[in-house]
Amino acid sequence: MQTVTVSASIQYDVIIGSGARKLLAEKIKARFGTPRVCVVSDDRVAALHLAALKDDLRQAEVDCVSYVFPHGEQSKTPETLFDLLAFLAQARLSRKDVLVALGGGVTGDLGGLASALYMRGMHLVQMPTSLLAMVDSSVGGKTAVDLPEGKNLAGVFRQPDLVLCDTDYLATLSEEDFRDGMAEVIKYGVIGDEALFDRVKNGVPRAQMTDVITRCVEMKRDVVNEDEFDTGRRALLNFGHTLGHAIEAGSAFSLSHGKAVAVGMVRIAALAEQTGFCFVPCREEIAAALLQNGLPTDCAFSNAALYEAVTADKKCAGGSITLVLPRRIGVCETKTMPVEELKELLQ
Amino acid sequence: MQTVTVSASIQYDVIIGSGARKLLAEKIKARFGTPRVCVVSDDRVAALHLAALKDDLRQAEVDCVSYVFPHGEQSKTPETLFDLLAFLAQARLSRKDVLVALGGGVTGDLGGLASALYMRGMHLVQMPTSLLAMVDSSVGGKTAVDLPEGKNLAGVFRQPDLVLCDTDYLATLSEEDFRDGMAEVIKYGVIGDEALFDRVKNGVPRAQMTDVITRCVEMKRDVVNEDEFDTGRRALLNFGHTLGHAIEAGSAFSLSHGKAVAVGMVRIAALAEQTGFCFVPCREEIAAALLQNGLPTDCAFSNAALYEAVTADKKCAGGSITLVLPRRIGVCETKTMPVEELKELLQ
Repeated sequence: MQTVTVSASIQYDVIIGSGARKLLAEKIKARFGTPRVCVVSDDRVAALHLAALKDDLRQAEVDCVSYVFPHGEQSKTPETLFDLLAFLAQARLSRKDVLVALGGGVTGDLGGLASALYMRGMHLVQMPTSLLAMVDSSVGGKTAVDLPEGKNLAGVFRQPDLVLCDTDYLATLSEEDFRDGMAEVIKYGVIGDEALFDRVKNGVPRAQMTDVITRCVEMKRDVVNEDEFDTGRRALLNFGHTLGHAIEAGSAFSLSHGKAVAVGMVRIAALAEQTGFCFVPCREEIAAALLQNGLPTDCAFSNAALYEAVTADKKCAGGSITLVLPRRIGVCETKTMPVEELKELLQ
Repeated sequence: MQTVTVSASIQYDVIIGSGARKLLAEKIKARFGTPRVCVVSDDRVAALHLAALKDDLRQAEVDCVSYVFPHGEQSKTPETLFDLLAFLAQARLSRKDVLVALGGGVTGDLGGLASALYMRGMHLVQMPTSLLAMVDSSVGGKTAVDLPEGKNLAGVFRQPDLVLCDTDYLATLSEEDFRDGMAEVIKYGVIGDEALFDRVKNGVPRAQMTDVITRCVEMKRDVVNEDEFDTGRRALLNFGHTLGHAIEAGSAFSLSHGKAVAVGMVRIAALAEQTGFCFVPCREEIAAALLQNGLPTDCAFSNAALYEAVTADKKCAGGSITLVLPRRIGVCETKTMPVEELKELLQ
């Protein structure tokens, strides 16, 4: 078991390893006394893991209710959010109680936002079950729901009080979901750690992921410690995401986040090469690592077609846009340009 | 013109006086460069003050859109909130732009929450037009919408970047709305400033409110500086509010906030006297000041009938409840008791 401590506006531990889930009751009691707990998860994760977690809590005499919603990005809406808030109110939970977000990125974003809003803030424990959530969304405090106008348009920064990242949960992921997470892992390698990139470029067995996840969480921690509210360096984490979000939205979310980011990374690496931004060409190496991990390197959308979607994205502010471009594997930098310049580059 | 500086998680000025509204464009430009502005207000306030404010902004070459919603507490809902967020997205505002909440408490709470959520936080200027909002809700960062299960159940702490409190706006308030605000002013006197209480107990002409408002904002600032997130001393501001909220909800919001708080103050002062908590009896003095300011001192709900409503209120956590009780005019203290004890006291 490994522990990474994040020191943002609040300090909290991310505990990573096999069996981390078993620590929930003990950690809650040590930190919060005897609160009640609401476990939030989607129907797929609930079917696999909810009963066991509730049993653990009850055996430790922690009073526990649960809220289950239909899986998928289409649940990450204002409607689900306010249905969950109504559930918390009807269950008469207080701001001293704990919301546990058990699931992937949608659950973490939705549950995290609900915990931030309910009575202006109750306690929050993130328990990611997907690889994507383990290495990315469960750490760093970004929460949100989507609006019809775009992804993640309504949310807050809300650091969790604890993250329990149980690598045993990886065994129950579909091949597709595991690959999705590997896209983010590869991203961490490209933006800041060539050794990590080399380690994962030919794939990693699921049972040997603890150290890889820990390294990703450490990198995320370093960025979040420095730029919690995403006004500078944190933008590095968006490598592949500006185009990726546009691809994801353009496919009406039929293309997964990981696949869209994979394609986004290849496209933006190509752009970096074309413009001479790359010190060492890396598009091919990134593409090869993605292929080895079962991820796509291209999609049906032309660059030109992505431009309109990109400018609707929230990262486009005041006529300029910030892109994350690779210098070489392990070194990325942000570059802010007028959106017109991006348009030319994409055409 | 008076300035009070709040030093919470962010530092900001509250500028109070005749003509403060005229400072908006200048202050925005000095602080944020050339952002776009969305003015949020309800239909009643918009009819009185929106055109003039937009003219001022346009004359100063600040690009400006506006969102107007139906007045009243019934608009403080998740539906209005997400309609406003969709409006911001459709107007393509960015996180670098400014939301101006022009109005009373509902506008400030709704606009404040929208500014906190939109892209995880855009800039916020509070421009209170009601006395209640000037002395209370526009300062201190509490934002929220109501849920069917209760008032203010979904919100965040979100300090504004600036508060412009133009006392000229008081001239357009109905007698009823002005009185509502005086209930909060009297509350400030009771919880911490006997001189303020004496000054306002026989009423104050609207044109002479700048110093009174400034004193209230200073008291609120002191409490917020010390306890921004409402875990201790800030509870003092709830004097009269625990019963007040129950009365307001029990009347299905046909009784205004100020009237409900007025009755709540008298009821809780009576309780303090009965239990020997008061050093100097003050129920009568409070009731006299309320009557002089056109406010009620009693209502149709029995104490017993309020108990169930109170325990549904968010301040009731884990079987205990925190009441604010007067020792004498100018000195209040909080007392936490099991809800059962409150039940006995109320019967």
